[in-house]
Amino acid sequence: MQKEFIIVKDLYKSKEEYIGKTVKVAGWIRTSRSSKNFGFIELNDGSFFKNMQIVFDEKLDNFKDISKLPISSSILVEGELVSTEGAKQPVEIHAKSIVVEGTSDNSYPLQKKRHTLEYLRTIAHLRPRSNTFSAVFRVRSIAAYAIHKFFQDRNFVYAHSPIITGSDCEGAGEMFRLTTMDLNNIPKTEDGKIDYSQDFFGKEANLTVSGQLNAEIMALAFRNVYTFGPTFRAENSYTGRHASEFWMIEPEIVFADLEDNMELAEDMIKYVISYVLENAPEEMEFFNNFIDKGLLERLNKIVNSDFVRITYTKAVELLIESGQEFEYPVEWGCDLQTEHERYITEKIYNSPVFVTDYPKDIKAFYMRMNEDGKTVRAMDLLVPGVGEIVGGSQREEREDVLLERIKEMNLNEEDYWWYLELRKYGTATHSGFGLGFERIIMYMTGMSNIRDVIPFPRTPKNAEF
Amino acid sequence: MQKEFIIVKDLYKSKEEYIGKTVKVAGWIRTSRSSKNFGFIELNDGSFFKNMQIVFDEKLDNFKDISKLPISSSILVEGELVSTEGAKQPVEIHAKSIVVEGTSDNSYPLQKKRHTLEYLRTIAHLRPRSNTFSAVFRVRSIAAYAIHKFFQDRNFVYAHSPIITGSDCEGAGEMFRLTTMDLNNIPKTEDGKIDYSQDFFGKEANLTVSGQLNAEIMALAFRNVYTFGPTFRAENSYTGRHASEFWMIEPEIVFADLEDNMELAEDMIKYVISYVLENAPEEMEFFNNFIDKGLLERLNKIVNSDFVRITYTKAVELLIESGQEFEYPVEWGCDLQTEHERYITEKIYNSPVFVTDYPKDIKAFYMRMNEDGKTVRAMDLLVPGVGEIVGGSQREEREDVLLERIKEMNLNEEDYWWYLELRKYGTATHSGFGLGFERIIMYMTGMSNIRDVIPFPRTPKNAEF
Repeated sequence: MQKEFIIVKDLYKSKEEYIGKTVKVAGWIRTSRSSKNFGFIELNDGSFFKNMQIVFDEKLDNFKDISKLPISSSILVEGELVSTEGAKQPVEIHAKSIVVEGTSDNSYPLQKKRHTLEYLRTIAHLRPRSNTFSAVFRVRSIAAYAIHKFFQDRNFVYAHSPIITGSDCEGAGEMFRLTTMDLNNIPKTEDGKIDYSQDFFGKEANLTVSGQLNAEIMALAFRNVYTFGPTFRAENSYTGRHASEFWMIEPEIVFADLEDNMELAEDMIKYVISYVLENAPEEMEFFNNFIDKGLLERLNKIVNSDFVRITYTKAVELLIESGQEFEYPVEWGCDLQTEHERYITEKIYNSPVFVTDYPKDIKAFYMRMNEDGKTVRAMDLLVPGVGEIVGGSQREEREDVLLERIKEMNLNEEDYWWYLELRKYGTATHSGFGLGFERIIMYMTGMSNIRDVIPFPRTPKNAEF
Repeated sequence: MQKEFIIVKDLYKSKEEYIGKTVKVAGWIRTSRSSKNFGFIELNDGSFFKNMQIVFDEKLDNFKDISKLPISSSILVEGELVSTEGAKQPVEIHAKSIVVEGTSDNSYPLQKKRHTLEYLRTIAHLRPRSNTFSAVFRVRSIAAYAIHKFFQDRNFVYAHSPIITGSDCEGAGEMFRLTTMDLNNIPKTEDGKIDYSQDFFGKEANLTVSGQLNAEIMALAFRNVYTFGPTFRAENSYTGRHASEFWMIEPEIVFADLEDNMELAEDMIKYVISYVLENAPEEMEFFNNFIDKGLLERLNKIVNSDFVRITYTKAVELLIESGQEFEYPVEWGCDLQTEHERYITEKIYNSPVFVTDYPKDIKAFYMRMNEDGKTVRAMDLLVPGVGEIVGGSQREEREDVLLERIKEMNLNEEDYWWYLELRKYGTATHSGFGLGFERIIMYMTGMSNIRDVIPFPRTPKNAEF
């Protein structure tokens, strides 16, 4: 039956083909108003951000019933597509018949009046039907595809890194423990410790916080790879920027140094933004009008700019020289806070900025040590309005240096046996970065809470739907 | 630095452009042999299934060192691309210089001799460098992209269903429990029960077994959607067909009945196979030669066939009429076993077969009840060599019938409050199915164990790497 119904997107995009013809559409009533003899329905069929106006009148047998249909009822409409030059919408349908597929109810929570975003989170099963969320989630879908397309067009291999991990050595944050043990009767060893050998995987298992180490395995076979999958943080963080479950993109490239890495990140960000601007113009216009007035200007500027590249040491100098008072004072060796990052990208450069070569003590063990013995080949990409959006590094490819760093940071060498072997059997210069998928969706839509760019967000005390 | 190096894929695909020119490549030694004055290296750079032959001789300063390099050492080669008509490979590089990027070691486990697949699983950090696994994982990547492209080209929205779920009502199998509680000191309520209110999400939380119910939410807003993400089963199953973590594709379509659903599944399967045949010809030829002799013939046949459609009742009749002795006897009402499924698709039809309208008692609560009150609008797609590859249904869109089924099956009505509300506010005919991603990779590659089509498989007692 689906093919009987032309999608509203096609009626807009190829209207010349259909004007004057009888068409069938199926969708949900967004708004409806009628007088004694005729009525108007704004119909959304889910295929397109915009609605199709349905004009109907008393010639319909069921005129009265249709007039009274509550919002969100689903209907099947047959009628003529009519050009309406000069009107808000370019076309409308003059209905010859309207069949009710599913009624709705006046208790339907998404009435025309504006709701707060907080309230809409409590009806996550219905909010995709609102303008805002239909726009957000369609952009999310298109951006996800843009990312795949970007990498696949460049011969990258999509590497599925595991979600369940038997190691807790990814070192990026607190983890969720996974178990099938009976929590009322946890098996113990003779000396009273938990007997994980009886758990499902025969040892402790957690949800991954990063696919990077696995991506390195794949990169050292395929040269260029990327992951794109869910990652997890068991942090009791209630900010609008943190979720317990989010998606990450982690490319890893071989025979490639930090310069290549920055170039890749810059190309990717520009590509995704351009792709979304081109493929979701209606949604992006909506965000620009109703969510964030300067959005399109900001995004277009980014696409056409050259990202700045400075070292951490230079960044610290600039921050100190600026004379600006910060909540967290700046000195060489400190981690940059969001206030510092935003000052650099917004006030000093008004442009995206790569900051590179951070002090080793504030970065991970796997980042390549510089000649100075003090800094590592890390990079963070800072963007106006957000701060850090990408974090990456050139990886330490020297087995001896890596081993020394593992010991220096009191990590357990045995946990890294295979990671070290990658350096033993044909190691190579390689680099990679991580992009939080939700971060770039927030950036492109102007939505300021991560709970509003994930269809069913998971945060502390919240795993509804 | 990466751009200095031309990828081997380009040297094959656009060889006319490079023959006679000096090129640089970077990659890993797959094999190496040399005599006193010259030598040959088979170099793989990860960009392409095939190797590039490097010819080098004593004119190199470091001829001796290069001659002795162990397998899997990484090198940077500069030399002339030379046409070698009539040889096994169309081109080779005559090296002017070879720089060692990373040495290897004679302990390298992937020596030329053939290893068992079982052994290779224990070196999952190195097996992507073997012919078999480089082929499998590249096909996996290309197939994943084909799936996204198929749906995105058809205006489907990619819906990210949650991985962590607060409900255990998806009803598709045993689940992994997720917790951040201290297992040595589990908080208890006054009456001695586990106090889940103190756990991270304030209640029991598990890993998802299916994104379908969430996909229905999204479909009833966007008309056509698909999920593509990891799903989990905490089943102690040691077969070659089951993993604890695997990826699923779950499309959901609205204003669409079971006929539409079958058409979509058929189109999708054919599209993915065609796309992989077209975009990974070298890998597919390898599988056909070394893994499964009849593979290409079988896949081409599928692409060009019309899938058969029969009801469960008809299938049972045919199985009984066949006179074939099965381990599990067949009668109306029984669940079809793999032996039955394979008999239908291989012996009776020698073609993919949709079996529809199963007895309600062997299918899930959400499947649409038929007029007969005995069967539901389910569909399974059976394919030769595998059996079931897709399972789906038209969904029960009638609120009252759905509620009755929930009660009949002793499920807890309150767990389904939002699922029921989807039927209250503009319900519509809709359908969907699930495709196990690894199943179709196994089908397309001829690999017979699911552990060999996932880079880092998770199975009972195994979460290495």
